[in-house]
Order: sequence, then C-alpha cells, then structure tokens
Amino acid sequence: MPTSATAIEHLRNHHQTYLAELIEFIKIPSISTLPENAKDVNHAADFLAQKLKSLGFEHVQIFPTARHPIVYGDFLKAGANQPTILIYGHYDVQPVDPIELWNHDPFTPTQVGDDLFARGASDMKGQVWAVISAIESIIRTDQFPVNLKFILEGEEEIGSLHFEQFLVEHKDLLSASFSLNADTGMLAPDLPTIVYGLRGMAYFEIKVFGPSHDLHSGVYGGVVQNPAQVLADLISGMRDKDGIVQLPHFYDKVVPLTAQERTELARLKMDDAYYQNQTGAPTTWGEKGYTPVERVGGRPTLDVNGLLSGFIGAGAKTVIPAWAMAKLSTRLVPDQLPDEVRQQLTEYMQQHAPETVTWTVEQLSGGSPSISDINTVESKALANALETVWGVKPTYKREGGSVPVVSSMQRVLGIDSVLTGFGLPDDNIHSPNEKLHLPSWFKGTEALVHFFYNAKR
Amino acid sequence: MPTSATAIEHLRNHHQTYLAELIEFIKIPSISTLPENAKDVNHAADFLAQKLKSLGFEHVQIFPTARHPIVYGDFLKAGANQPTILIYGHYDVQPVDPIELWNHDPFTPTQVGDDLFARGASDMKGQVWAVISAIESIIRTDQFPVNLKFILEGEEEIGSLHFEQFLVEHKDLLSASFSLNADTGMLAPDLPTIVYGLRGMAYFEIKVFGPSHDLHSGVYGGVVQNPAQVLADLISGMRDKDGIVQLPHFYDKVVPLTAQERTELARLKMDDAYYQNQTGAPTTWGEKGYTPVERVGGRPTLDVNGLLSGFIGAGAKTVIPAWAMAKLSTRLVPDQLPDEVRQQLTEYMQQHAPETVTWTVEQLSGGSPSISDINTVESKALANALETVWGVKPTYKREGGSVPVVSSMQRVLGIDSVLTGFGLPDDNIHSPNEKLHLPSWFKGTEALVHFFYNAKR
Repeated sequence: MPTSATAIEHLRNHHQTYLAELIEFIKIPSISTLPENAKDVNHAADFLAQKLKSLGFEHVQIFPTARHPIVYGDFLKAGANQPTILIYGHYDVQPVDPIELWNHDPFTPTQVGDDLFARGASDMKGQVWAVISAIESIIRTDQFPVNLKFILEGEEEIGSLHFEQFLVEHKDLLSASFSLNADTGMLAPDLPTIVYGLRGMAYFEIKVFGPSHDLHSGVYGGVVQNPAQVLADLISGMRDKDGIVQLPHFYDKVVPLTAQERTELARLKMDDAYYQNQTGAPTTWGEKGYTPVERVGGRPTLDVNGLLSGFIGAGAKTVIPAWAMAKLSTRLVPDQLPDEVRQQLTEYMQQHAPETVTWTVEQLSGGSPSISDINTVESKALANALETVWGVKPTYKREGGSVPVVSSMQRVLGIDSVLTGFGLPDDNIHSPNEKLHLPSWFKGTEALVHFFYNAKR
Repeated sequence: MPTSATAIEHLRNHHQTYLAELIEFIKIPSISTLPENAKDVNHAADFLAQKLKSLGFEHVQIFPTARHPIVYGDFLKAGANQPTILIYGHYDVQPVDPIELWNHDPFTPTQVGDDLFARGASDMKGQVWAVISAIESIIRTDQFPVNLKFILEGEEEIGSLHFEQFLVEHKDLLSASFSLNADTGMLAPDLPTIVYGLRGMAYFEIKVFGPSHDLHSGVYGGVVQNPAQVLADLISGMRDKDGIVQLPHFYDKVVPLTAQERTELARLKMDDAYYQNQTGAPTTWGEKGYTPVERVGGRPTLDVNGLLSGFIGAGAKTVIPAWAMAKLSTRLVPDQLPDEVRQQLTEYMQQHAPETVTWTVEQLSGGSPSISDINTVESKALANALETVWGVKPTYKREGGSVPVVSSMQRVLGIDSVLTGFGLPDDNIHSPNEKLHLPSWFKGTEALVHFFYNAKR
C-alpha cells in the first residue's frame, strides 16, 4: 500500500521535471499592475487551469473579474470524513523596474549555483509550484488523503482587488475546513517557519496641487508656495524623530505585543546586524523602544513608496512644479483597519495642508492584519511536516508583510489559514534580481507531501 | 538721406517676412538639455550663422564647445568713433514636458489671435529674431549707425556651461562698448520695461541613499530609514514656516532693498491678485515682510524643481526605495554667490542628514546676481527708443529670473548690459503652451531700430 514515502520517492525522481515546469510558468510576465501585461496575466491563468485539469482536478474553471481572472479547481475524492483544504495562491507578479539593475532578463529564469533568478521565482510562482508538485506526486502514486480546493488569483500584487467579492459570491463553492497559504517564507535555509501573524496594509496616493501650470522659478520664485515643498513638509510631519507615526489616533487600536511574544521573538536572532546585512542600509532604524524583529512583526509603520514632481530628467530645468505626488503605505497590526487609516490620513491632511495648495488622497489598496491560532490540528500537521523534512521544530513568527486574503477568508468563509512558504529573506522579492533558493524549494515540496498526509483525520 | 523712419518703413513692409523666418527658426527643436536633440541645436546654430552671412556680417564663425556651439558674427562698418555693441542671445530652448498639456505641437508654431504658440517663441527665439529683423531693416536701407558684434549661445537653458570660458578665451574678439541683451521681458503690453537687476542662480541635484536595493515594505518596513522620508525631512527643514531659507549664512551677504527701490517697486501694481492670476495658485505665498514684487526682484529663494523616488507608475508597488532624488535651486540677489551657496547647502546636509543614509550634492549650474547702472548713455538710448514706440516712459524693474551671462560680461569683459525684451509675464516660458504676443513683438522690433540710431555718438 502506498504511503507518504512512495510519494516522496516519486517527487525526488521528478524534481527536474517539476523545476522545468516551474520555469515555463515563470517565463509568463504576468505583471498585474501594468495594463500592457493583461494578456500575460490571462496566459498564466490558462497555464494553471490546464495543469490542474491534467492532474485530474474535477471542476476547473477560470472566473473572470473586472480586472484579472481567478482560477478555481477541486479534487474531492477523499470522502466526507476527510477535511477539505482550500489552497490559496497568486499567479501575478510585481513590475520589474528598475530593469537596469537586473543581472539577467527577469522573465528568462537563470540558475546560478543554488539559486534561480527571475521575477516571481520566490513571490510566489515557486511556492505555487511547490504545492502543485507535491499534489502531483501524491496523485500519481496514491489515493489523495484529503479533499482539495485550489483558488489562484491574479491581483495579489495590486491589492487583491476582487478577491473578497469573489469569496462572497462563491461562498458555497469555497467552503472548506481551513486554508493553506504558502505566500510567506522561511527565516533561513535551516529554519522552517510558520507565520501566525501578518500585518495589514493601506496604500495611498497623495497629490498636492499648487499653480495651474509649471512656472519659471526665476519669474515666480518667491510668490507662490512650491507644491513639492508642501509635500515634503507633509511627509516629514507624518513621523516624529523617534519614528512614531503622527496620523491622529494611528495607535489607538494597536494591540501591544505580549511579554510571551517578545520573549519568542527575541529568540529569532534577527538583530540589527542581521537586518543591516539583509538590507545594505548604512544603519538600521525604527520606532524607539522595540527591537527590529518586534518592529517588523508587531508594530505598524508608514513608508513612502514613491515620489514624483517637476523635472526629473538629466540636467537642470528651472520650474516650480504645478503638482507633486507621493505613494505611501502603512503596514498595520491587529486591530488597525485600512479604512480607519484612510480617515486618519485624510484628517492629517485637513489639519496640516496649507491653504496655498489643494490636495487629494486616493486609497489604492488595503488589507486587514491577522493573527492565527497555532494550536489547531492543521497547524500542528504543518509543524510536524516541516520537522520531518528539516529535522528541527519550526519557528513561529509574526511577519511584516501583508496577506490580506487571510483576513478575508476569516471574515467571509469563517476559516483560518496555515501559513508557510520556502522563500528566504534575501530573495529580493519586489526588487531586482529576485531569486528562489532551490534546495529550500525542493525540501518544501517534500514537506507539503507530508503535510497532506498529516492532515488526514 | 535715410533715417530711422526709412528703416521703420522697411520693417513695417516686411513684418510678415520676418515673422515667417522666425517661425522657421522656432521649428528647430533645439532643446539643449536632451542629448537626443544635439543635432537640432547644431542645426539652429547653422541657421543663425547663415542668416548673419546673408545680412553681410563680415566675420561669421561657429565656435564649437564641449557641448553646444557658440555663433559669432560682426558688422563693424560704422567707424572707430562709434560704439561697438555686443549683442547677446541664445538659440537653445527648454524641454517640452509635460507634452500632454500642450494644445498644439510645441515645434509647430501656431498662431491663435495675437499669439504665436511654440516652445522658444518668447524665450528667446522671438527676441533674437526681433534684434535680427531690426538690424536687417537698417542694413537694407542705410549705413549701420553703430558697430555690431553678435554672440549667440546654445547652452543658456542648461546654465551657460561654456559661455564664460568662451569670453575668457576670446576677450579681444569680443571687446565692445556695452552689451545689449533682450532676454528679459515687459510687465504688460503697454508697459515697456528695462531690467536693471537680475537674480543669480545655483541649481543642485541632491541624492539620498538608504538600502542597497529597493526593499519589500512589508518584510523590512520598520527596520530601516526610508530615504524618501529622509529627503522629505531635509527639504522640509530648508525653510521655516515664514519662508525663510535655513541654509547656514544664506542671508549674510544679501544687500537689503533700499527705501527708494521699495517705493519704485510699489508702483508696479504687481500685487498678490496679479500673481495669483498669473500663476493660477490657490493663494500667493512667500517670505514674510515683503511684497510679492519685492520677493521676486529683491529677495533670494529656494525651490524644489523636481522629485523622484521609488515607484511612480500607475497603481501600487510596496517598496522602500533604495534612493531618493531632488533637484533644487536657489535664486540669488547681490552679493550672494553660487559657490558660497553650494558650500552652505553642503554644510546644511552635513548638519542635518542622519546616519541612516548617505548622500551627494551635485551643482548643475550657477550664475551670479547683478545690478546695472540705469544712468548710462546706452541705458538712456534704450529708454528713449521704448518711449518713442510706446508713448510712455519705460518701467525700471529688478527681475526674478537669472541671466548669468550679464555678470560674466561684467566680470570678464568689463562691460555693462542694457536689458530689455518683449515677452510678457503670461508667455508660459519654460511651461506648456509658451507663446509670443505678436503686437508687442512688432513694436519691439521698431524700438530696437530706434535704439541703434539713438546709440550713435
């Protein structure tokens, strides 16, 4: 009778095949934020639907949304006594700019040593393909031990615009025991990780408008307020010198880290030297009174993601710009809510923007923070699977990134998520030279095989 | 015997011809700051050299520089008893972005009512052609009353990079009694203007560097200082809430406006309502304690000309940018010097930039401020010429813009400049929809004819 060992053997014999398939998947430049890549996003959705069909998934369907489609497939042959796992993934990727900093073409996956360099290799096409490879290895060798529903969206990198609405409209189709989400990562190649806390996000575009057109800075310098300077004033005032965000009531709903959490986090050895090495910054910096790992996992932040105003070409152009723009985002912790942050930012602008300008605040995306119970059956199934492969107990971590779909699933479907993933902190996700560490990825696929067997009742 | 009246008659009979020639000149997209337009800049220089030759100028030569050439031509037939006027002009123009705000193609001059819309129409191809048209009308009808040297550069809009060096190297060739510079403008169509004071300029590019690459704002938000926020802090601190520039010792050498100057400037009726109307800003703003026209003409300023950092495309990208850039420039009044301002800015950065970033300050251009004597023979010759055509005495004004060549000529050649020009405050120079008011331009050409006759000893 086949066991997890049979599936693992199959997996090891087909690693190169699965890697070759992953490379084909990555080659599709499914950048969700760029209108010119819309057809590529569709192509990636088709690619996944075809794969699920080839695995014998029963109901496979591409659901269009107002922007990018959602791929659904189910494999429900384990019987009503077995749990149904709703697997989440996304097949869209971040833009590639600044393109000149890439060492290889971002959509020509290139292996250098143990790493595969390409946009999406780590975030998260590699993770999606780890799950698919694990499932295939079981399907080819055994009865599948649990029931599966797979849902793959194409808008994660632009804020999962239509995901929650889709959950609401297809609540019955998506009913499940819990969700598996592999969109997080590991702390190091030898430290398998389970993320139990995720920050939320609220992302905004602020525009400040001054004169009706760009002005000559000699003819008009001294008579009008410069909107780029007003924007600088406003951004500067959003934090104090200790890194405390100054939006009104920003911290009112922040749940403090418990003493136990601070003790756990202190074990992670992600200290200032670690973060300085990871980021290449001259020094680390952040909210006073917290360690780096506490700040990333347990404290909210506000960051400028982009600035644009006036003349940005080579050389000198003497203009007072007509407007200035900032993209800025907050990372949120329980119980902050994106809509409340939008109100706080609007209130801040009302209080601080001078009468020399007009302004707009547009919310581009948002997602709530979440905390998961680490004592559930499925969380323990994952912990055991990771320990089987790595030989060490997994580390539990609160993560700085946002997976808004986790809170959507809690809210709409009433199910918790178990979160894992096999990317590494130095994978350069969202940056040039994104890469996937292949030895960790191979181990991850094996851990997922164990997880599906462990999840059997 | 021919007189100024003969030349004026010729001029009026050929206005349409001269306008057609001006249009051909404007059609050449001689944008000096863009490398891809270098051939167009050369084309504009050839166009001028050909014109001067066709007028019978004797020594016509195109002098190459390390970037864009300088056109020289002389017409020295009036005899040693007559003054030699060194006429200055520039044939390069500003870039056209944001191109989408233009109502017509910027290099397809388009007449709407009394206005000719095109990049360079007012600044300063129209002014150069007014001088050439006046000269041609005299040459075609009379012995030229004074000696002429014409010098036309192609780098004024990028800070006259090689102009002063050229003066130094060709001091003898360029020796003259005084200079005529038509690169300023009029206050209104019925107010001919003589500019006797010009602000200087020092233009910089500041870059702030944080992490070695763009970071994921979730994974790293809270552990490193964001260079875009540091840049905002630095810019914000460069002025206080009353508009006082905070660079150390910035005002030490500023010569205060005299009581007489403030009385003169108060007559100009360029009040807040005027500037609000010109700029389309919600309200005017500037250094406390000075009227708008005092601030423009007699007080230094600091303006942000451009901002760039991180992700500026459509949608949301959650990065902590690796760097942030600002272009900023100061307008200077006597006796401030660009090199001293560079030192002040560097000192400011040393004092205020935190250790979480590294930074650079690059000076892109600079020019000293200047004040001219309004009681010279040549200044009176110009004043009388303007009064002859407009029927009112010209207004004397200190101008906000910079004409660094004026101070270069004082310093290197030892000659003063008389400054005029027939552009208007609403000409949108350096902005989309630049235009030339043709009735003012026609009057200006006539005034220049009178000026050359008046300048005769």
